[in-house]
Amino acid sequence: MNPSAPASAPATARAHKVLREIPFGATTLQVPARRLHLTNGESLDLYDTSGPQGHDRRTGLPKLRQPWIERRKALGTENVSQMHFARRGIVTEEMAFVAAREDVEAEFVRSEIAAGRAILPANIRHPELEPMIIGSNFLVKINANIGNSALASSIDEEVEKLAWSTRWGADTVMDLSTGKNIHETREWILRNSAVPIGTVPIYQALEKVKGRPERLDIEVFLETLAEQAEQGVDYFTIHAGVLLRYVPLTAKRVTGIVSRGGSIMAKWCLAHHKENFLYTEFERICELLKKYDVSFSLGDGLRPGSIADANDEAQFAELQTLGELTEVAWKHDVQVMIEGPGHVPMHKIRENMDLQKKLCKDAPFYTLGPLVTDIAPGHDHITSAIGAAMIGWYGTAMLCYVTPKEHLGLPDRDDVKQGVIAYKIAAHAADLAKGHPLAQKRDDTLSRARFEFRWEDQFELGLDPDTARKYHDATLPQDGAKTAHFCSMCGPHFCSMKITDDVRKLADSQGVDAQVALERGLVEKSEEFARTGGALYS
Amino acid sequence: MNPSAPASAPATARAHKVLREIPFGATTLQVPARRLHLTNGESLDLYDTSGPQGHDRRTGLPKLRQPWIERRKALGTENVSQMHFARRGIVTEEMAFVAAREDVEAEFVRSEIAAGRAILPANIRHPELEPMIIGSNFLVKINANIGNSALASSIDEEVEKLAWSTRWGADTVMDLSTGKNIHETREWILRNSAVPIGTVPIYQALEKVKGRPERLDIEVFLETLAEQAEQGVDYFTIHAGVLLRYVPLTAKRVTGIVSRGGSIMAKWCLAHHKENFLYTEFERICELLKKYDVSFSLGDGLRPGSIADANDEAQFAELQTLGELTEVAWKHDVQVMIEGPGHVPMHKIRENMDLQKKLCKDAPFYTLGPLVTDIAPGHDHITSAIGAAMIGWYGTAMLCYVTPKEHLGLPDRDDVKQGVIAYKIAAHAADLAKGHPLAQKRDDTLSRARFEFRWEDQFELGLDPDTARKYHDATLPQDGAKTAHFCSMCGPHFCSMKITDDVRKLADSQGVDAQVALERGLVEKSEEFARTGGALYS
Repeated sequence: MNPSAPASAPATARAHKVLREIPFGATTLQVPARRLHLTNGESLDLYDTSGPQGHDRRTGLPKLRQPWIERRKALGTENVSQMHFARRGIVTEEMAFVAAREDVEAEFVRSEIAAGRAILPANIRHPELEPMIIGSNFLVKINANIGNSALASSIDEEVEKLAWSTRWGADTVMDLSTGKNIHETREWILRNSAVPIGTVPIYQALEKVKGRPERLDIEVFLETLAEQAEQGVDYFTIHAGVLLRYVPLTAKRVTGIVSRGGSIMAKWCLAHHKENFLYTEFERICELLKKYDVSFSLGDGLRPGSIADANDEAQFAELQTLGELTEVAWKHDVQVMIEGPGHVPMHKIRENMDLQKKLCKDAPFYTLGPLVTDIAPGHDHITSAIGAAMIGWYGTAMLCYVTPKEHLGLPDRDDVKQGVIAYKIAAHAADLAKGHPLAQKRDDTLSRARFEFRWEDQFELGLDPDTARKYHDATLPQDGAKTAHFCSMCGPHFCSMKITDDVRKLADSQGVDAQVALERGLVEKSEEFARTGGALYS
Repeated sequence: MNPSAPASAPATARAHKVLREIPFGATTLQVPARRLHLTNGESLDLYDTSGPQGHDRRTGLPKLRQPWIERRKALGTENVSQMHFARRGIVTEEMAFVAAREDVEAEFVRSEIAAGRAILPANIRHPELEPMIIGSNFLVKINANIGNSALASSIDEEVEKLAWSTRWGADTVMDLSTGKNIHETREWILRNSAVPIGTVPIYQALEKVKGRPERLDIEVFLETLAEQAEQGVDYFTIHAGVLLRYVPLTAKRVTGIVSRGGSIMAKWCLAHHKENFLYTEFERICELLKKYDVSFSLGDGLRPGSIADANDEAQFAELQTLGELTEVAWKHDVQVMIEGPGHVPMHKIRENMDLQKKLCKDAPFYTLGPLVTDIAPGHDHITSAIGAAMIGWYGTAMLCYVTPKEHLGLPDRDDVKQGVIAYKIAAHAADLAKGHPLAQKRDDTLSRARFEFRWEDQFELGLDPDTARKYHDATLPQDGAKTAHFCSMCGPHFCSMKITDDVRKLADSQGVDAQVALERGLVEKSEEFARTGGALYS
């Protein structure tokens, strides 16, 4: 505890982006972080997802990975997946980069990817990517969805949403566009994204068959995958687990099938009375994905759309199929994560995680929320952050955000921020509960700043300095109040933290442990204490 | 499922307050509810906390309980606590009222109160109260804090915050005023409150000794309690568990003592080197409380103020003392609940609940959050709603709200609403996880409305119809869109719920169970289905 700042400490907390030099073979990697300089002279590096700043959107971000990808071409392998390299014992630049971000050994990253317990989504056609990893033995990640629909939004808005969501901490972004200009929107997003981009290719495939699901087939689908893989998409949601025989299991549900992809494939299966072509032709998809290192995000097309439907037969039947497909993908060294619900009451969340781990052999789980109740439209970032935090603690590797507009409309800029912040809270709470030392360190640093009334440090250490500062200033706008040893909740003469400080000083002034001080007989000091301490309340 | 509304159904969902007539002996009780008339002809009664409307604040609310209290005077007992009556086998009007609100038998209410597993806070000087119950075998409740501090707020603002917070569902309200006009503010609040009012009397007692904790004593404290009990306060937070020997246990904490009441008593103990007078004179306090039926809310003065300090020795030592005091209070038939933290990471929450149950013999637990991380100042309604939902599921009976301004400033009107809604979510999610049939029914009714695109029903069934409607209209403002069979997320031609409806209709059209339909061989129907269903996507 050192409430008085040393001479070298800045008068106000400052944060800026740094590139840390990490040795890799004969070269070095430049790994980004957000460095905080606190007013007490301490500094702290935080994980940073915002990517290179200040570039012209028309030219896009610098191609960080290009030399790494070129170098590996010399290896002459047709399979370029990180899993393929990992299983051959090769630590790639991407793995070393990730290891530095996560503060672990690169060899550990390699072994987790080799075992399928983590994925490093990194299409070789997406050189702008700053690599990151998704796995339960790493920091819990969050995904933000963007994308226009037929009714709203423009390309520029979507690129802006990408920058905005990564500024607040989105680890990956999914482009869920379904309207016009799908290809062009995606191109702009990829060239300006330092985070992995995921898509649901069936949306574009459906556009190609004029919106008629029954006209879909594996050829048009593979053509779509190839187009998107060439652009650089890092992971594909593919609903290969929606089997014909599972569809009738949804007929008695309160909310049937709520996944768009799931309902498209269900309709296809019923229309043709045939098995889902994504399932029957799954190995052809693997063949394509491994040439680019696109990761599978095996979609949960039969996820529950309401509390009533959680953990039902349809959902878990599909999960079992996703487990089978995971092993098929791994046979091809294609990276896989598994998508999960959705809407699940708290007491049924753990079963989802435990079953997923078992059926999918520890492949990373990637869930949407889950929402723990359906009765709060307009506030579903909160209903779902509750479920997300819990399932993250239980072992989910990535949490797909939900914005306040969920079920009601398309998120605007503020909704995106609210969704990202709610999910950063959930992910971080999960990291804490899992005992992650980086997470605990940030909490403790903020708690000390709070206790010592270092307001600016508290703001900067938080997930949303702008809002914290604004709320503080709403009651106490004076600059002096930011270094004041009180806050507006109790006022200057009534502060519990100040009183505690007195208690501590009293112990310190004895030159002994507080417990011992009391045992020695504090009674002789009590009069003096009353005299000096009392002044605080005058 | 009946997407077409019967002739009697209203064109738009309507909600209004009703008073249900409940027989009680020779008379009837009028129990409030919010009745929703849905557009499909169904209706649903929801628990309502908003109290009688349209009264002049200067005269206050009608005195619903006055005749009940008068009648019981004939019993000639000096102890007027609900626990005292319950233990003598008497079902009071208050118990019957509560039973109707909770949809349980009045005898069950009586037995829970008699056992100390629930409290019915109802000061006989607060006749305006609409009785409610706090216990783990009832609906989880939430508390909203209001109250001015020396720096901000006026009486009128506080009464408005009371009305506003109960409108959104606050079950009790604590007046935490510490500035001027404490007595007058409280009087206005009580006379206009249909929910129980709690206070922390040490704040006012401290004002009486000019803000010098060391000048406090049991006489000034009892005088304060008598003053507040006479006004009608329903429960008192009393920090009787902060013992002298526990104070040094906090010296090594990251955030010391963060409870105002706790720090005041800690300072008193150290200043005098004597045991906490609230502890040593606890039975005198019981004697006073039982004359009014004021309930104890035994304060956790040593609760952790940060993740780092959760579940430490100081916290649990105090909890053990609160367990001892619970038994003392019960000896006097005084109702008791126990306050809990605060700041606790997810993996340490259950230990709080389990230990509280054991040490405090199933007395209701009343927690503040807990916040599951400290790194989100400006969003602590979310960090704490996560912990609140979990501890509510584990058995906590009442959740004290946290607003977005927590740690930063005093909540304004919108902050109060955000805090209440976040906590209604947490409480309801806990009810669902505990299997409460009323909670499940509301979720299912909303889910059906959502699936059938009954937008107005969905809004009204939610916790915040205003926000849901506003968000929906931001993308699709036309009136027609509120009955449209699509929403802005996917657009009219791309709706998963619509596709599911097709799946279901297909099964129905076979006149058989969907599973059987498929087994019979749907293949012969697939062409027809493709023809008719395909039209949806043209």
